[in-house]
Amino acid sequence: MAEEVKLYGTWVSPFSRRIELALKLKGVPFEYIEEDLSNKSPELLKYNPVHKKIPVLVHNGKPIAESLVILEYIDETWKNHPILPQDPYQRAMVRFWAKFIDEMVLATGWKANFGEGKEREVAIEEFAEQMKFLENELNGKDFFGGETIGFLDIVGNLIAFWFPVRQEALGIEAFTQEKFLVLFKWIANITKIDLVNECRPPREKHLAFVKARIEGLQSAPK
Amino acid sequence: MAEEVKLYGTWVSPFSRRIELALKLKGVPFEYIEEDLSNKSPELLKYNPVHKKIPVLVHNGKPIAESLVILEYIDETWKNHPILPQDPYQRAMVRFWAKFIDEMVLATGWKANFGEGKEREVAIEEFAEQMKFLENELNGKDFFGGETIGFLDIVGNLIAFWFPVRQEALGIEAFTQEKFLVLFKWIANITKIDLVNECRPPREKHLAFVKARIEGLQSAPK
Repeated sequence: MAEEVKLYGTWVSPFSRRIELALKLKGVPFEYIEEDLSNKSPELLKYNPVHKKIPVLVHNGKPIAESLVILEYIDETWKNHPILPQDPYQRAMVRFWAKFIDEMVLATGWKANFGEGKEREVAIEEFAEQMKFLENELNGKDFFGGETIGFLDIVGNLIAFWFPVRQEALGIEAFTQEKFLVLFKWIANITKIDLVNECRPPREKHLAFVKARIEGLQSAPK
Repeated sequence: MAEEVKLYGTWVSPFSRRIELALKLKGVPFEYIEEDLSNKSPELLKYNPVHKKIPVLVHNGKPIAESLVILEYIDETWKNHPILPQDPYQRAMVRFWAKFIDEMVLATGWKANFGEGKEREVAIEEFAEQMKFLENELNGKDFFGGETIGFLDIVGNLIAFWFPVRQEALGIEAFTQEKFLVLFKWIANITKIDLVNECRPPREKHLAFVKARIEGLQSAPK
């Protein structure tokens, strides 16, 4: 039976882009469906009735939601170019830091950018601490995955490409090469990989999009 | 080499209790260390410097935090009595619903109990919808794991034993047998398993603890 693999995403979401990257790393052919989040398709609502969110991967008719869950599924289903390490302890560490990025770093990054007064100051310090934890995890390696990119590099894309764009759009300098030399070296390493660049929004288009969103947020009634 | 397995937890936490249950199901001997969360031990802070929280599992000197990450580690390390299914799609579904319980249900349950006015009303409705999703997932089975308890039954303990106690302490009736017959049948099924009962707080002690905490919350300055 021919495999049918569909990915529902949006071009600007780090969460669907990471699924795209994992599929391409493994050479899995798939159909990509761009969702308009202001007018979600009946398919998306059918496939993810719980969260009604992208990304959704549909493999031979069976839907999976939640990007970290999808990444694990992809690694268990297509075994070439494993993205998780084999050792159970190393796997646990990758899962721990992926969760850390999606839960802690994302929330702190938001407050560091859009918080007000004291909340913002505290978040900027917390963000710096979180980045130091991640630098420590890189620990001299070229990639989180070691000699090549793996699960955590895919998840960390968010930090590599989405945070700098938001920062530039806001005109702030919390995440800089001077402060986070190790992470910026890692960003330089992953940027050398063609597939990584294919699976992120074009920089200028991304920046224009984020600037427009920020204007929308700032002009919204509080 | 003799295995050294240590679990740092607290008796009243559903998150450390679930680790205890997984270890006992697999027959892994371990040392349990009760943490006083108002005065955390230097070991806990050393082993979980990121979150400074229980549970932490330390296996032959190597620490792992985050209960869902620990459960995966346990299943990959001690292979008898697997708690995750073997099929990748089934595994993805278990991971999806476990995340759903720990992220969505926990937050909604809190608002349904402690929210005010409109927020509380909305949360009670959302909570009911969430319970219906879980009932649908049980889908005629005795356990989420099928014929015996698995990963999702272990995680779902929170709903089986922690929510009813909090509800009783607050004197509310949002989660009742009349409304959620399927889930209450499941609760009856897991309650027949000795290990499940061993790995939860004694009901009366638990109730007294939650009542005292609620009094503390309600008398705290807002």
